Amino acid sequence: MEYKDATIEEVDQAMRESQVAFLSYKNLSGKKKAEFLRAVADEIEALGSSLIEMAMSETNLPEARVAGERARTTGHCRMFADLVEEGSWVDARVDHAQPERTPAPRPDLRKMLVPIGPVVVFGAANFPLAYSTAGGDTASALAAGCPVIVKAHPAHAGTSTMVAEAIKKAITKTGMPQGVFQHLHGKNFAVGQALVMHTITKAVGFTGSLVGGKALFDLANKRPVPIPVFAEMSSINPVYLLPESLGATFEKTASMLAASITQSVGQFCTNPGLIIAIDNEALKKFIAKLSEEISKIPAGKMLHPGIADNFHRRLKESLQQKGVTIETQSTDEGSNLYGRPTIASVPAQEFIKNPLLAEEVFGPFSLIVKCRDLTELTSVASRMHGQLTSSLIGSEDEIQNHSSLLNVIVEKAGRLIVNGVPTGVEVVPSQNHGGPFPSTTDSRFTAVGTDAIKRFVRPVAFQNFPNALLPAELKEENPLKIWRMKNGTLQKA
Amino acid sequence: MEYKDATIEEVDQAMRESQVAFLSYKNLSGKKKAEFLRAVADEIEALGSSLIEMAMSETNLPEARVAGERARTTGHCRMFADLVEEGSWVDARVDHAQPERTPAPRPDLRKMLVPIGPVVVFGAANFPLAYSTAGGDTASALAAGCPVIVKAHPAHAGTSTMVAEAIKKAITKTGMPQGVFQHLHGKNFAVGQALVMHTITKAVGFTGSLVGGKALFDLANKRPVPIPVFAEMSSINPVYLLPESLGATFEKTASMLAASITQSVGQFCTNPGLIIAIDNEALKKFIAKLSEEISKIPAGKMLHPGIADNFHRRLKESLQQKGVTIETQSTDEGSNLYGRPTIASVPAQEFIKNPLLAEEVFGPFSLIVKCRDLTELTSVASRMHGQLTSSLIGSEDEIQNHSSLLNVIVEKAGRLIVNGVPTGVEVVPSQNHGGPFPSTTDSRFTAVGTDAIKRFVRPVAFQNFPNALLPAELKEENPLKIWRMKNGTLQKA
Repeated sequence: MEYKDATIEEVDQAMRESQVAFLSYKNLSGKKKAEFLRAVADEIEALGSSLIEMAMSETNLPEARVAGERARTTGHCRMFADLVEEGSWVDARVDHAQPERTPAPRPDLRKMLVPIGPVVVFGAANFPLAYSTAGGDTASALAAGCPVIVKAHPAHAGTSTMVAEAIKKAITKTGMPQGVFQHLHGKNFAVGQALVMHTITKAVGFTGSLVGGKALFDLANKRPVPIPVFAEMSSINPVYLLPESLGATFEKTASMLAASITQSVGQFCTNPGLIIAIDNEALKKFIAKLSEEISKIPAGKMLHPGIADNFHRRLKESLQQKGVTIETQSTDEGSNLYGRPTIASVPAQEFIKNPLLAEEVFGPFSLIVKCRDLTELTSVASRMHGQLTSSLIGSEDEIQNHSSLLNVIVEKAGRLIVNGVPTGVEVVPSQNHGGPFPSTTDSRFTAVGTDAIKRFVRPVAFQNFPNALLPAELKEENPLKIWRMKNGTLQKA
Repeated sequence: MEYKDATIEEVDQAMRESQVAFLSYKNLSGKKKAEFLRAVADEIEALGSSLIEMAMSETNLPEARVAGERARTTGHCRMFADLVEEGSWVDARVDHAQPERTPAPRPDLRKMLVPIGPVVVFGAANFPLAYSTAGGDTASALAAGCPVIVKAHPAHAGTSTMVAEAIKKAITKTGMPQGVFQHLHGKNFAVGQALVMHTITKAVGFTGSLVGGKALFDLANKRPVPIPVFAEMSSINPVYLLPESLGATFEKTASMLAASITQSVGQFCTNPGLIIAIDNEALKKFIAKLSEEISKIPAGKMLHPGIADNFHRRLKESLQQKGVTIETQSTDEGSNLYGRPTIASVPAQEFIKNPLLAEEVFGPFSLIVKCRDLTELTSVASRMHGQLTSSLIGSEDEIQNHSSLLNVIVEKAGRLIVNGVPTGVEVVPSQNHGGPFPSTTDSRFTAVGTDAIKRFVRPVAFQNFPNALLPAELKEENPLKIWRMKNGTLQKA
């Protein structure tokens, strides 16, 4: 089916409708917003197998993966529903007046988080449900009280359209303002550009390539009124293997990494693209075991031809760099639409000299960086770009003994993992899916977990307000019974 | 005295020392950082009257004001000391593992806020102590665990140098890493530029003009690795007078505003530069009373000749715009170094057509916008730029009856005030000193109050960490006894 790009007039119309919706939607109670988000989850489930089939046909992802993604999508809609229904997320503060204070009386002051305004969301190619039309960006923005305008990803425009229809049904069912969700197609960059540049747009969510995300970030900063862009872009998720314990754990570590590198044909933002280790006997055994595993994993059909082309080009380029040696490839070559699992290695000195090797190769590929010693390994760590994750494989004692390494890698990533792999991003309050540039454009916010809502809000203080004029969250009697910091003390009663 | 600009080599040296200091300073306990911040306050007080005299001589501010500012400065150092000693500000989260979960076990995940890295601070001309060398930006960044590099404001370089020496004494006294605070002079923009562009710099704090703040923001976004700039820039702080109650309150309102407009020669970022009202009999009485008060308030010597020149130029320009009429000026004309209190008015239709009238005139000036009716008044409100504050003067019933006005102005400001003036920014947890562009570059953060620390941190998640390797804030036994969200429930025990 052909999906027609929105015209500039349609973009403008969608943004105007968003703004009208915003002025009423923002004032709805958490309970009403929760009803809406739960209805979105219900309507997505009501699409049944037809949604699964559409997503499979558009992305080449297997049924189990798409079904898992659907569960994740409805799960985060319901998670944000619970969050806003409970209400404490607004971080309410109350400081009572001190009329007797000298030299001047202190006024009553209260503060809470309020929605920032209409949010434009660009869905991810690699998550047709969980980071797309009703993905984490959309769900968290709607939960915050912001209307959402989705630019459908052209690689799964049919899936996007089905989900958009489900959201629209939920709007009608729960009596939300119609304009609170808009869905536009745009293969042409002009549509995305018009959305980001529109005066009504107050923030942008994006998941995709560094080139795409950085282009939107630059556009947003060139606006007469700059707006925040939350772009999740590029991460190679280094895994550091500590030398002393590797001799005992190489088999388990190799199996764990082989699965992580090739899961969903390596098309995860948390795919471990770099393994950094000391060149010793244990590493040789690790590489032999990893090679054995990788060689058996078949090539997989990638999300779309553009992603496959990009993988082949970037893989070829990486393998041609000075000092890079192929360690193993899957015995299954696949075709030009497939990603063939591949492991290569390079001496640390060459890696340090060649910035191209620190760039993401999106697909089932990992590069092993062989270091002479721990000093060189720490030196590699200290030159690393910003990452979503960094992982350390080693015993507790060994990590403790090399605490300077941990002290350095914490500066380079948003999530640190011990004896595990970076793939698998839990949706919990303690999740941080974000990290220093270029992994994202703003390391201060997460795209996954309840705190994702914080991207789309700003604080407003209310000074000397009569109780009747205050939002419910700040009224003296705390009618919503939320956690508040009152005169410096956190309390609920 | 002559203060020599730092060379590019000195900038580089300062940044390198900051980074070295960062790698140890960030790991110090909240208790140790609190000792340091309290020592900073003590050492500033130990400077005694010589600091007051230096600041008075450099800024023309009166003694009471400078003494008040010193109290505010030492006050916020001690406030942040208390905050980091208590420790709950790191927003700790703990989500236990679920090893039995199917299809895959859930790992243990914990999260807290960590310092972002070295922060460059540009002090404000109008607050030689409270928003300068040991001002709110410096104190909150040091509290967060970030080294600070201050670019001294050339208009009070002597004051800045004295405060820097006090901070250095506190560093020695409490055994902090020497590089944790750096102080550089730079009349030339090249110094500031080099600081913002340095790879080690992780964030920038700035208080000053729109031109200056926007230039730093643009520079920071052009870096290969963009960094956040917290610039507080330009706000005209509209005050909306509701018509029905003005007849009864015009005298009190006029006196309150006259004082607020002329306090410290109008040199506050929260100075009420715009008064928006309906053109009726009550407004005539209000203007008569305001004129009576303003005419008696003497012209005041401004902070420095550049600020006085700018005030005269911008005032003249505003008064020359179509439809603008002078309502009153102080009978004291002052000289070219002085700011003469001035009130003008303009019909709303002219105001709406002329964007220049919505720009800040930094000094003792306020423009009254005369509206035909509430519809026009709401239309003016809806076209307003982003502001630090917006104020509503009116009875509770009247504000309630015109709730659409409140619904619009909440989108335009970071702090809303009922029946009060915007000057006077309380340092409390519920303060929000920030607002939509162009009042600041990032409406999601405050520059005043405990939450100012949030500008200089980012979250990091720790997955599957052995207890011994976790930061104290996240250890299972909660040794710091801080508030944490544990498995979804906020708790302290």
